Amino acid sequence: MTTFEANFTTGEYLNRIDKTRSKITVLGLDAIVVSDPSNMSWLSGYDGWSFYVHQGVILRQEGEPVWWGRGMDTMGARRTVFMQDDCIRGYDDTYVQNPEKHPMEDLSRLLSELGLTKARIGVEMDNYYYSAAAHRTLEQCLPEATFQDATGLVNWQRAVKSEREIEYMRRAARIVEAIHDRILNVAEPGMRKNDLVAEIYAAGIRGADGYWGDYPAIVPMAPSGMDATAPHLTWDDRPMISGEATFFEVAGAHRRYQCPQSRTLFFGTVPQKYRDAEAAVLDGIEAGLEQARPGNHAEDIANAFNATLNKAGFVKDSRCGYAIGISYPPDWGERTISFRRGDMTVLEPGMSFHFMPALWLEDGGLEITEPILITEDGCDCFCDTPRALFVK
Amino acid sequence: MTTFEANFTTGEYLNRIDKTRSKITVLGLDAIVVSDPSNMSWLSGYDGWSFYVHQGVILRQEGEPVWWGRGMDTMGARRTVFMQDDCIRGYDDTYVQNPEKHPMEDLSRLLSELGLTKARIGVEMDNYYYSAAAHRTLEQCLPEATFQDATGLVNWQRAVKSEREIEYMRRAARIVEAIHDRILNVAEPGMRKNDLVAEIYAAGIRGADGYWGDYPAIVPMAPSGMDATAPHLTWDDRPMISGEATFFEVAGAHRRYQCPQSRTLFFGTVPQKYRDAEAAVLDGIEAGLEQARPGNHAEDIANAFNATLNKAGFVKDSRCGYAIGISYPPDWGERTISFRRGDMTVLEPGMSFHFMPALWLEDGGLEITEPILITEDGCDCFCDTPRALFVK
Repeated sequence: MTTFEANFTTGEYLNRIDKTRSKITVLGLDAIVVSDPSNMSWLSGYDGWSFYVHQGVILRQEGEPVWWGRGMDTMGARRTVFMQDDCIRGYDDTYVQNPEKHPMEDLSRLLSELGLTKARIGVEMDNYYYSAAAHRTLEQCLPEATFQDATGLVNWQRAVKSEREIEYMRRAARIVEAIHDRILNVAEPGMRKNDLVAEIYAAGIRGADGYWGDYPAIVPMAPSGMDATAPHLTWDDRPMISGEATFFEVAGAHRRYQCPQSRTLFFGTVPQKYRDAEAAVLDGIEAGLEQARPGNHAEDIANAFNATLNKAGFVKDSRCGYAIGISYPPDWGERTISFRRGDMTVLEPGMSFHFMPALWLEDGGLEITEPILITEDGCDCFCDTPRALFVK
Repeated sequence: MTTFEANFTTGEYLNRIDKTRSKITVLGLDAIVVSDPSNMSWLSGYDGWSFYVHQGVILRQEGEPVWWGRGMDTMGARRTVFMQDDCIRGYDDTYVQNPEKHPMEDLSRLLSELGLTKARIGVEMDNYYYSAAAHRTLEQCLPEATFQDATGLVNWQRAVKSEREIEYMRRAARIVEAIHDRILNVAEPGMRKNDLVAEIYAAGIRGADGYWGDYPAIVPMAPSGMDATAPHLTWDDRPMISGEATFFEVAGAHRRYQCPQSRTLFFGTVPQKYRDAEAAVLDGIEAGLEQARPGNHAEDIANAFNATLNKAGFVKDSRCGYAIGISYPPDWGERTISFRRGDMTVLEPGMSFHFMPALWLEDGGLEITEPILITEDGCDCFCDTPRALFVK
């Protein structure tokens, strides 16, 4: 039982479980073992930085979910999950990072105890926290069980957000607005990049509008100049300089819900090429947002964006958006829907995305992005950060 | 080629590769595919927050390592790895988080091109970034190859640190000292926990002694009171109160090298029970440090610590330390040596550990920990943070 303010009512968790069980039934599974921390949290409320050891939530066709993890983390489970304490099971510390044995030996005993020795069990084959060794051990220990890939099964149930989830994302949106505001206020040529990242972290964790900031599932990305031709470099202490663009790919977070948004800041006189890129991206965003409405497909947004971009002479060959919501490192996306050609997912009210039409040019990067919510008749941008290339 | 100051000389990378190849030979392998971002960085210099997609470094018996990852991340690889650009290979963006296909299909083509179609290939079966699906796909695409578990193979080569690595850890030590100093200065009853975490982040990223702070591989942990009975809860906005202990499990980081250290802060009059626990832990630390010298076993430290602790009437049933060095989320440990009974690893000069004798009591937690370096004739503590329960 949660011992302080729960993030969601027990009713909401039970709804999520019902929804997930329907899918489990359709797939002919008896149970799923969920290793993705986002899915564990969404189904049970569990929250803690313990995903560096093997853990999971077991959901059967009947009964409460069972939290399973390292013995010492049962204390954190008692304080965060909605279930009673007898649904929390821990394994001995000697299983931790010990090549002589594997925690999945313990899980297989628990699965047997739960009557799943010969069951059809879904596992998240392509999740960070379900390793090849975990799978091999489970298969060896439960030779009569059948394991089936259930990667994304729970993630897909998360696509349409509840009112409370949307509220948390709106709070996170206030926080990412505050981060961009802070960047604009304090960034200047000569400032060490790490000092600016310190400001970004502080603003993000302090929060905004009275709501506290949680940790983003990805660290702030803030590369300048040529470093910004690469999407995922982190910072060092080189000072920012005039005549360079720096993009800020950052997220506000509240109760693990993530609201990422990027902006780009140019010091000095903006070269025409950047102005052209800015105009192309802004037009492309407008064209994409036009398509962001219920009934359309995810690819419609990408196609509209890309067509507009290409007309202006720019090309982007990577996806330009993905689903967002609750998340843990290393990714703030939901790993389901992508804005790219061929993604025929039908958009529904309550789905939330990071529309992420970043351009990486030959001498820098331009990121102007929008977190969006699909509404009854179109879409809302979560943030009101000015949509432009910032210049200082 | 790195385009700005490289973290290590090419000579140092080549030494690491030689060391790793000897082990590959002993195991009868033709190559290893390394997915652990820490191992990728240690072997090639690669640095970037791109480990949320499949990527790796391939090391064969001959030739330079090959960096392989998402197409857009080849730009970051060009800016961080020591190898020439023709050793950097990217895959198409349509492979990213697409259930229709798997990036390992692309890797298997590359492995074939490298002459490894029928090779014996080591893979890191129990790493976060080598999923069950990744392994299954590789096995399916290269049916004539033999895959062998090489979890920890590279991690073990990292155990003894070079002078430059130790220098980076010392810089990280200055940073974690600065973090604890900042906590002591600003923490007070009534302060929202997230505001204190904002200060921790800002101090850690600003750095110390002129050295910039990198991101820690685990977020700051700072639970108070009953929350501190659980080791891995993160923060919210509840204010700190008098009469409660808060432990701060934080790390300084520099160029991805991690120096974790924990301290505990009590507001008000310390109950005798906490004083007793403090005395027991401090005595236990002294006893453990006595055993931290070349030639002794890792378990000797744990046994000395536990014997002292037990004499004082306290019990700790989890490991009390682990190897540290370069790291990426979700863990700042090296996942090799543990201070616990049965770990017979012989200590050598240059090995570095987080001696982590945390006590979780029934109504709170007490963490007073020391990052240490094994020297020629004993050990050095990396930090000079006062070793005591802090009271304010």
